[in-house]
Amino acid sequence: MAAPSRRPTLAVVLGAFLCSLAALSAEAKVHHHTWDIAYHRKSLDCFEKLAVTVNGEAPGPTIRATQGDTVVVTVRNMLETENTGIHWHGIRQRGSPWADGTVGVTQCPILPGESFTYRFVVDRPGTYLYHAHYGMQRVAGLDGMLVVSESDGVVEPFTYDEEHTVLLMDWWHKSVYEQAVGLASDPLEFVGEPQSLLINGRGMFGCSPAAPGGGAAACNASCALPALFTAVPGKTYRLRIGSLTSLSSLNFEIEGHSMTVVEADGHYVRPVVVDSLFVYSGETYSVLVKADQDPSRNYWAASHVVGRRRKTPSAMAVLSYAGNDPRAPPPTPPPAGPAWDDAAPRVAQSRSLAAAHPDHVLPAPPRPDRTLLLLNTQNRIDGHVRWAINGVSLRFPATPYLVSMKRGLRGAYDDQRPPADAYDNYRSYDIASPPAANGTVASAAYRLALGSVVDVVLQNTAALNGMSETHPWHLHGHDFWVLGYGEGKFEPGRDAAKFNLRDPVMKNTVALHPLGWTAVRFVADNPGVWLFHCHIEAHVYMGMGVVLEEGVEKVSRLPKSIMGCGRSEGHN
Amino acid sequence: MAAPSRRPTLAVVLGAFLCSLAALSAEAKVHHHTWDIAYHRKSLDCFEKLAVTVNGEAPGPTIRATQGDTVVVTVRNMLETENTGIHWHGIRQRGSPWADGTVGVTQCPILPGESFTYRFVVDRPGTYLYHAHYGMQRVAGLDGMLVVSESDGVVEPFTYDEEHTVLLMDWWHKSVYEQAVGLASDPLEFVGEPQSLLINGRGMFGCSPAAPGGGAAACNASCALPALFTAVPGKTYRLRIGSLTSLSSLNFEIEGHSMTVVEADGHYVRPVVVDSLFVYSGETYSVLVKADQDPSRNYWAASHVVGRRRKTPSAMAVLSYAGNDPRAPPPTPPPAGPAWDDAAPRVAQSRSLAAAHPDHVLPAPPRPDRTLLLLNTQNRIDGHVRWAINGVSLRFPATPYLVSMKRGLRGAYDDQRPPADAYDNYRSYDIASPPAANGTVASAAYRLALGSVVDVVLQNTAALNGMSETHPWHLHGHDFWVLGYGEGKFEPGRDAAKFNLRDPVMKNTVALHPLGWTAVRFVADNPGVWLFHCHIEAHVYMGMGVVLEEGVEKVSRLPKSIMGCGRSEGHN
Repeated sequence: MAAPSRRPTLAVVLGAFLCSLAALSAEAKVHHHTWDIAYHRKSLDCFEKLAVTVNGEAPGPTIRATQGDTVVVTVRNMLETENTGIHWHGIRQRGSPWADGTVGVTQCPILPGESFTYRFVVDRPGTYLYHAHYGMQRVAGLDGMLVVSESDGVVEPFTYDEEHTVLLMDWWHKSVYEQAVGLASDPLEFVGEPQSLLINGRGMFGCSPAAPGGGAAACNASCALPALFTAVPGKTYRLRIGSLTSLSSLNFEIEGHSMTVVEADGHYVRPVVVDSLFVYSGETYSVLVKADQDPSRNYWAASHVVGRRRKTPSAMAVLSYAGNDPRAPPPTPPPAGPAWDDAAPRVAQSRSLAAAHPDHVLPAPPRPDRTLLLLNTQNRIDGHVRWAINGVSLRFPATPYLVSMKRGLRGAYDDQRPPADAYDNYRSYDIASPPAANGTVASAAYRLALGSVVDVVLQNTAALNGMSETHPWHLHGHDFWVLGYGEGKFEPGRDAAKFNLRDPVMKNTVALHPLGWTAVRFVADNPGVWLFHCHIEAHVYMGMGVVLEEGVEKVSRLPKSIMGCGRSEGHN
Repeated sequence: MAAPSRRPTLAVVLGAFLCSLAALSAEAKVHHHTWDIAYHRKSLDCFEKLAVTVNGEAPGPTIRATQGDTVVVTVRNMLETENTGIHWHGIRQRGSPWADGTVGVTQCPILPGESFTYRFVVDRPGTYLYHAHYGMQRVAGLDGMLVVSESDGVVEPFTYDEEHTVLLMDWWHKSVYEQAVGLASDPLEFVGEPQSLLINGRGMFGCSPAAPGGGAAACNASCALPALFTAVPGKTYRLRIGSLTSLSSLNFEIEGHSMTVVEADGHYVRPVVVDSLFVYSGETYSVLVKADQDPSRNYWAASHVVGRRRKTPSAMAVLSYAGNDPRAPPPTPPPAGPAWDDAAPRVAQSRSLAAAHPDHVLPAPPRPDRTLLLLNTQNRIDGHVRWAINGVSLRFPATPYLVSMKRGLRGAYDDQRPPADAYDNYRSYDIASPPAANGTVASAAYRLALGSVVDVVLQNTAALNGMSETHPWHLHGHDFWVLGYGEGKFEPGRDAAKFNLRDPVMKNTVALHPLGWTAVRFVADNPGVWLFHCHIEAHVYMGMGVVLEEGVEKVSRLPKSIMGCGRSEGHN
């Protein structure tokens, strides 16, 4: 439909998009799910501990729908004394900002014994995620994938025969409560490295699926069968890969097989062939893998920690060619993965992603109306180690922002202290040294003009220990164009001139590399209140996020079901 | 003031009571407390685990007030993702039924990040308790004592020189969440025996304060100093003893010292001299102890498990005579306590308690208007082991009864299924055999006529394993007269005729002994909705309780702060 031009106009792309939507709407389905959220004992990595489960499973089931469908999930909280809330990661919730599932921002928590119904349209095909968004509850296992298919008749810019989902996680043996108490302690007790990495909810603690033959003990078959991906020789597989790690940046590889990256966060990208894929928490990718190797044996699929000193064994799954014993371990030693501390290939992969064929691309607006230059720092505030953005460490208010802003409840958040668009002393700030200044803890928010184009430049710095680490930032309610990555300190005049406006990839989660900066652009055209935050659970718990409001006055009548807490009690 | 008669009229006693209240009202004080409820790591018994704390302490501080004072406690929930609520155990909450702190009955839970203020009058002197009343949260350590002194000039029926508080607990190393998951599992995984008993929050796991000299390892001095009670030779001490065990029935003794029981649950009792005291969860006692032994040495004070096979070491504290090294262990081996399975002395002690001097006694009404004969059974319902009362296993509704009843919210609890005043097949029920019949799970309630006199006969039975255990039943909002204990099955005509109406002790918690019955009488004169339940946390979690309503229409306007959950959302 779109003219074969490299730069289609916004109208052409939008037109194509709306046409396809209209074509589909007659067939749009409503998918109903009822989920009981409860603690159960799980041995995901052969170590039994309590996990927060969806209908008894951790991770939860994969939700499948087709573009234009409506997903309805009724969540029944059976956690006894603990609340919950579920975020639909990557779904923009256009017209349903109250269904974003971000407790403290878009809704009150769901109380034990109560139900809450999420209802939203999945308006774009792609690979998405869901997870608890309340305190650090996601660490306990309430997560899963959400796959939205293209409608019948819509052609994707690549072909494949079959698909598999690959959910990557990291896993701790201590409880979320123990982790949170440590993070709030003085001195800080960090959560530490995970005991295991999981692939589709399976890990091996203290054993190896490669044994015998390897040095480690063999795994107990009852709990530690590795995740299995089957392949028919000659066929091409789409792996829908998502990471919901709580801390770890990962590298994923399939022994002997290259992967062609074709989708990131629900957007088609120009195909890139890689030997292994770096995946940050909150990101999704589709890669194509051709079963073109020796079909008489199986192959390891592995995820490895990168970016932090590797104290956690890599996770191993098996790619099994049809006809082999699916449980036969591959004859080769498990792959070791890349050096954990070599950031160069990670930055290079970030930079290598570009928008796909222009038929599938929404071009970025040429310039911003407003720029937020967000300095990410680690600070000691009132005796506690916190993360701060432009000197403000985020604490969620008792009343959800969406309710207090829509209803004009004064004082329900720190509305008298709007955060700064840039750090006060940005020019003199030495990003390579631990912060000298302090910060404040507040429940503030940025108010954006509806429809405005907003640039956000995330600037990394050295933490209190002098090191700088990777932060995957995730934006709710929007996708953004990734305009560029840089090393060192962002200089507005110089660096903004180099932004990629030609073929920037769109994403909802982006890596901020050590001591670097990352620039993104988005259109503030989704009335509501949206969180933008580091997707490391411990980091957002320690304040690493900002709240963005746009056009809240355009939000239609709020459902009563999101209220009941803080000052929203009694509103309806 | 009262005439020296053995049987004062109700009017005389009430008159004396009201006079003393009036005399005090001019001096009544308001005691304000602000409590932050948060998880902290605690080593109460040398094993570090998370505890729910009050301002960082577990157990919490002792609240002290004088009869007629007002206690105001502002509770700030810092538990991150978990709710809370605090019950003031033994305080009748006359005129303030919304301050009883029973989540699901009198209020919605207090959400993380929110505050709730309890405000109530302590209208009678005595020894009381407080604790979390939400799920099984009490197991995690949110508990303490509340001591109400007589007003100046009011003479108690005994004298002493000084007093100590003695809070008895049991303690598990696994979390409340792990315990609850086990209880809800099929097959049932019971919480098991506690790892430790605690005296004033101190226990010793895997060590003994008696070592060296005993066989066990010496305790690490940094975590396991036993609780210490100092005594000056010749002086008399009032020990205010309360038990907030989650499971264990206890025997408490002080080596070489007899104890004179003078108060039970806030009521003076006819003095009884005992060598050791049986204490059930939810009970309080005051005992007088004279420091009349060899003052050159220290003595053990100990609590021992009774009524269940003893797998938990006894807790040891030290009574230290002034002038001795308070940390010098007593020269004698720690006392071993009574045989765990000898119920006879326990029943005998229950029977031995009688009301004190008539000046301090409210006589029991001569006959009931209604009798509830409550058969306590353990049942298998829908694959789960539960406790049921007359066939109904209590599940708390999402909306607190107090709100749904006062506001007439239909269907907010099981209002179409009122529970039976007696078990349907009571006459043919074989209490010595495991139950053959099933039961139902419901959120039902008994509706009592305001001002009516109600008898409740608790009937014990054999559980699914054929054994019968002790259940301490606690009534909220009232005290009751204990009319009698019996062995075997209660026969209404025969046994009611033998009720003690002459000098029944008043209490708020009473033991139901194995395969026996216990009869109590109370006046339903406190408008509100009140829980009556087994004080074993696992048992009430498994449904062992009933809800009683009386005169809810006379309750004044409900505070908005108790609402926000279930169908109370939006009410104000």
